[in-house]
Amino acid sequence: MAGSCFGKYFTVTTWGESHGKALGAVIDGCPAGLSLCEADIQTYLDRRKPGANRFSTPRKEADAVQILSGIFEGRTTGTPISLLIPNTSQRSSDYSEIASYYRPGHADYTYDAKYGFRDYRGGGRSSGRETAGRVAAGAIASKVLKELGIELCAYTKTIGPVGADLSHFDKDTIRETPTAMPDRIASEAAEHYLSECMARKDSAGGIIECRITGVPAGIGEPVFDKLDARLAAAVMSIGAIKAVEIGDGISVSASTGSKNNDSFYADETGIHKSTNHAGGILGGISDGDTILLRAHVKPTPSIFQEQETVDTNGENRSVQIKGRHDPVIVPRAVVVVECMAALALLDLVMANTTARMDRLAAFYRDLL
Amino acid sequence: MAGSCFGKYFTVTTWGESHGKALGAVIDGCPAGLSLCEADIQTYLDRRKPGANRFSTPRKEADAVQILSGIFEGRTTGTPISLLIPNTSQRSSDYSEIASYYRPGHADYTYDAKYGFRDYRGGGRSSGRETAGRVAAGAIASKVLKELGIELCAYTKTIGPVGADLSHFDKDTIRETPTAMPDRIASEAAEHYLSECMARKDSAGGIIECRITGVPAGIGEPVFDKLDARLAAAVMSIGAIKAVEIGDGISVSASTGSKNNDSFYADETGIHKSTNHAGGILGGISDGDTILLRAHVKPTPSIFQEQETVDTNGENRSVQIKGRHDPVIVPRAVVVVECMAALALLDLVMANTTARMDRLAAFYRDLL
Amino acid sequence: MAGSCFGKYFTVTTWGESHGKALGAVIDGCPAGLSLCEADIQTYLDRRKPGANRFSTPRKEADAVQILSGIFEGRTTGTPISLLIPNTSQRSSDYSEIASYYRPGHADYTYDAKYGFRDYRGGGRSSGRETAGRVAAGAIASKVLKELGIELCAYTKTIGPVGADLSHFDKDTIRETPTAMPDRIASEAAEHYLSECMARKDSAGGIIECRITGVPAGIGEPVFDKLDARLAAAVMSIGAIKAVEIGDGISVSASTGSKNNDSFYADETGIHKSTNHAGGILGGISDGDTILLRAHVKPTPSIFQEQETVDTNGENRSVQIKGRHDPVIVPRAVVVVECMAALALLDLVMANTTARMDRLAAFYRDLL
Amino acid sequence: MAGSCFGKYFTVTTWGESHGKALGAVIDGCPAGLSLCEADIQTYLDRRKPGANRFSTPRKEADAVQILSGIFEGRTTGTPISLLIPNTSQRSSDYSEIASYYRPGHADYTYDAKYGFRDYRGGGRSSGRETAGRVAAGAIASKVLKELGIELCAYTKTIGPVGADLSHFDKDTIRETPTAMPDRIASEAAEHYLSECMARKDSAGGIIECRITGVPAGIGEPVFDKLDARLAAAVMSIGAIKAVEIGDGISVSASTGSKNNDSFYADETGIHKSTNHAGGILGGISDGDTILLRAHVKPTPSIFQEQETVDTNGENRSVQIKGRHDPVIVPRAVVVVECMAALALLDLVMANTTARMDRLAAFYRDLL
Repeated sequence: MAGSCFGKYFTVTTWGESHGKALGAVIDGCPAGLSLCEADIQTYLDRRKPGANRFSTPRKEADAVQILSGIFEGRTTGTPISLLIPNTSQRSSDYSEIASYYRPGHADYTYDAKYGFRDYRGGGRSSGRETAGRVAAGAIASKVLKELGIELCAYTKTIGPVGADLSHFDKDTIRETPTAMPDRIASEAAEHYLSECMARKDSAGGIIECRITGVPAGIGEPVFDKLDARLAAAVMSIGAIKAVEIGDGISVSASTGSKNNDSFYADETGIHKSTNHAGGILGGISDGDTILLRAHVKPTPSIFQEQETVDTNGENRSVQIKGRHDPVIVPRAVVVVECMAALALLDLVMANTTARMDRLAAFYRDLL
Repeated sequence: MAGSCFGKYFTVTTWGESHGKALGAVIDGCPAGLSLCEADIQTYLDRRKPGANRFSTPRKEADAVQILSGIFEGRTTGTPISLLIPNTSQRSSDYSEIASYYRPGHADYTYDAKYGFRDYRGGGRSSGRETAGRVAAGAIASKVLKELGIELCAYTKTIGPVGADLSHFDKDTIRETPTAMPDRIASEAAEHYLSECMARKDSAGGIIECRITGVPAGIGEPVFDKLDARLAAAVMSIGAIKAVEIGDGISVSASTGSKNNDSFYADETGIHKSTNHAGGILGGISDGDTILLRAHVKPTPSIFQEQETVDTNGENRSVQIKGRHDPVIVPRAVVVVECMAALALLDLVMANTTARMDRLAAFYRDLL
Repeated sequence: MAGSCFGKYFTVTTWGESHGKALGAVIDGCPAGLSLCEADIQTYLDRRKPGANRFSTPRKEADAVQILSGIFEGRTTGTPISLLIPNTSQRSSDYSEIASYYRPGHADYTYDAKYGFRDYRGGGRSSGRETAGRVAAGAIASKVLKELGIELCAYTKTIGPVGADLSHFDKDTIRETPTAMPDRIASEAAEHYLSECMARKDSAGGIIECRITGVPAGIGEPVFDKLDARLAAAVMSIGAIKAVEIGDGISVSASTGSKNNDSFYADETGIHKSTNHAGGILGGISDGDTILLRAHVKPTPSIFQEQETVDTNGENRSVQIKGRHDPVIVPRAVVVVECMAALALLDLVMANTTARMDRLAAFYRDLL
Repeated sequence: MAGSCFGKYFTVTTWGESHGKALGAVIDGCPAGLSLCEADIQTYLDRRKPGANRFSTPRKEADAVQILSGIFEGRTTGTPISLLIPNTSQRSSDYSEIASYYRPGHADYTYDAKYGFRDYRGGGRSSGRETAGRVAAGAIASKVLKELGIELCAYTKTIGPVGADLSHFDKDTIRETPTAMPDRIASEAAEHYLSECMARKDSAGGIIECRITGVPAGIGEPVFDKLDARLAAAVMSIGAIKAVEIGDGISVSASTGSKNNDSFYADETGIHKSTNHAGGILGGISDGDTILLRAHVKPTPSIFQEQETVDTNGENRSVQIKGRHDPVIVPRAVVVVECMAALALLDLVMANTTARMDRLAAFYRDLL
């Protein structure tokens, strides 16, 4: 399968480039009977939309989604859902210069190496704009999951050296701060840091964290489609992400078994863990606890300082990038991480329906 | 697809449990005409074999691989290669007790939750022993890659607080130290630390690093099967791994664009990068530089201290684990990381053959 | 994978219903650098377009395709190609009555049984209109194949009792006759037969044959993705097709080995077969000869006679279907069969690039 | 995915050649908790076993299956089931001559063309012996289906010119006649015809029919994984099969809508069809009626008459095939058709569990 399809059960194919006519996604495998309208999706797209504040590219895009198929009388029919988002703000002339050289930190060189040439306008397919299709599809996956009692919440944990204090965690704050941090004080510090970066013609990175609650124990397909493996693939497939952690993540390597093991205990509501170093996943299968993952996002590669590079004729040269670029990718990528996690999780939730003979038999007994 | 198949072009299906009759793998899609014998595979399995030193479980397993199909007169025929590794040391009685409770940090509880019951002998399918099939398959993938000029080298970077000094990097040392570190001095310090852990009935974690050289620019399939996404999935699917990094990995989140961007330069041998923060991957496609990844391994969950848990009837209880367990997973997992990276990479190397019309046409022109 | 994706290398996802806003397809995996414009696709869609003659539904649809992504400066970029065909003639009121009952020979009942409800307008997703997306994708596959020297030609072999005399075979005639027969005399007889059917408020079936030339020996992936198995799946997935034959097809069951075996012979141009009972496929792999397949198409189920059926409340009733319906599906399905064969074949042509180690090594040697 | 994997949910990978050490299959995705032992599988393999009568190759193979993994305490664990069938009767010397030339009607030439060389012993991977793995896997699929109330029954419908009278249909007779016909009188006539064929050093073909009962309405995934499309792929992937029909099959092309449409009617037990021209499938989805399919099998290509062919140096020559060969493939292929149909059907039965939101929600509500 070529690389633009994700998922085996809830299959998403995204298409579109930064400066083409439109972007979109086709979802194949969405269960029939889900109530769905464009507003359900638009809410998610609006979280990713450019131009929302001074740390976001001034490119104006309505990112207004259209549902072209798969819905009848307000409900999904079980057939493919085609989603289309027109590109309205295509100032391709901004990009004509970059046709001639390879921007450091970007995919210009590797696309040329692979395909022989590239759509250089705004990075073409390698643009962050490609994630609009993912978010549209992820909005639907999130709605399916919500019907099953599962909710996802992603937010900015750090920007550059500034970390949110999660003891101040407030979900509403995530949508209200320009940084998508759940902590107003840290957000203001991060904004100050970003202003400094912009002044230096530089850019910043950060960490996105995602919590998933309501996942029953038993989700994940050993041994290659373990829940953590699929989450890692989903999140690492987002541009600019260079590391993925589950639960305690990188700190496990310096820990000890006695500290890192989570004890089990039982009470009247079932079996639980007294701690959650594992991040809700044991042996690649959900254990009923909150699933916790983190993604490390690199600084925006488009900076306005002079940089050394090579042109498409193989000559060394200096370049100074122009155009519209966010000084940090993190805040707009928060919803992308959340949506990719939703897509990976829903796929495995659907896979799990055939794990047991007794449940498969009960399903068909009910059906007859 | 159920979860025991990996890869779309070079497809591996592993099977087998810790204490079943045998373990194995079937490889579908290996190109015809590769010279291959059991010794090619055994070399890799021997790197994973238990009982090699005092930090490895005393379980004795020859782990002797048999090739059952797909080879004729010493060469692969293009048909499925079936690999079988008999289990010879099945002291299942050691495990009869764990049938009744859920070991902390293990998959006992989640397998029961998913499948309704479990093969409790030695962890069944969730045992690290399952990786023998991956290593056998990865050995073949590595041989194919070597024919194309690509080599992989994984090693232990840290154990607990002890880090290898990579300025002392020596490839031969990796196979000679019991820690699989490329640095003898650090290895001795790590051995000392592990002895202390064992004395405390505790266990240690660590970091495995893998370098891949000789990969041409152009490998990776945007946007979901990017090279980094597939490497992350491959490595995160190994039990006990809780974080995966590419290139500078976690440190990118605190960096700036001006530091993190790698400049391009050209010389008579082609286009290169002056630094390699990206770890050889830009936009999910290899850039011709060394590919660098790291995996964070949690401490062995089987420790000999008393732990709190729940039995299969849902009653709280204390347990003390017995049996044969490594105080650290890292050294034996080094070859598993290397093999999973090989499987992920080869799959994308094969995918890349149809990326360009001119090359596809040339392929068929040559063939006629 | 849900059922609207076809192909592993050249992957097509179709979407859309008869009376939705639009229909379309996304192609993932088309090699980069293919010259492609909308006219290349329109030619194929025009062969399927309704309203061309008196045996075709008077529904007027321009079926004008738009390419939304994947093309830059007239060439494919290697990224997904999104194709959109607006629905312009949606007289949904024609169909409001059929919401209440199950048409004999149609999928109304089975869609309700599967999904719980259905988009009843014009058959929704089960409409023949869904094949527009297949044809658009197949047009691109055919163009790729043509670049490799492979050509497909499908035509009507029989309509009802009237068979074309293939000794009169003329390729241009296929596009000129309203029956898509390659023989004018038979076509006129078939037209006469169809007029009689219409007068009786009845409908007719027929046979579509497809010849594929220029396929080198070696295409097909044993044992489940054999060339014949994939062609059968591709063609049988078209609505109304109830049988698929390869080569001599159904007549082999009454033949003998001495008659059915094709002798090989060699001359200066290579190895050939003196006959072609096998239809160009041996052991599921192309043998270099013309590939020949046939599809048996059932009569249009929408007839204007009174029929017995059941309404959606489970009550027995009589119905008389109204609306716009072709008296025979065959002529418009010819291009659909050709396109599905192209999609199945190209997928295996692409799969074949990694069959041999020497060729894989040569590919990467050339690339470095 | 290379071609030796079948199925997306109940995934089977077969491996092995005619004269290798063993053959086998790995099943990934079998639901946990199914009671399963080797005898369940052996019953099916015995129906395919050579040497049962004078129309079957005298090669003696016990075809004794071993289960190597995936079963614990008599039940499937949900992990991969590895099945191994040793090859015990490898008279490879019989085949040394055929290394040098291409047998007419066989895959010798096409395997060489594809892979560059071939395992010529007994046809290697292209041997009918490869189907042992399919039958072993199909036996398990059949057992799962039986638990859901679905049963398959395949039998010989014709051999050469001799057809069974299905009004005499008797299921037990199928296993008792050497032809696998359900009609003793026709079987005797077919045996007489086969004796004549053998006397003429010739071989015969025939038709296999399969009936599937108990399939609820709703199975099949439009538009490419329709039930008929998957059945066609499954059956056409068996060597020697050149045509597949569903329901009335080839006769629909000469029928009319008024005759071919099946009327619906309702009674207290639900909705039914008064006839079954459709063979239990409408719009690619099961309609609750008996599913009916037919496969046309070519005459055994190995005949003992002198034939013209080409040697591996490209020289023309005559050959006379020796060794052990059935004069007809049909009787032993009956169970293979049944098993491939079971594999295709079960896969779609499992796919169907996620078709509807209400059922998915109910599944997870029950689970919590």
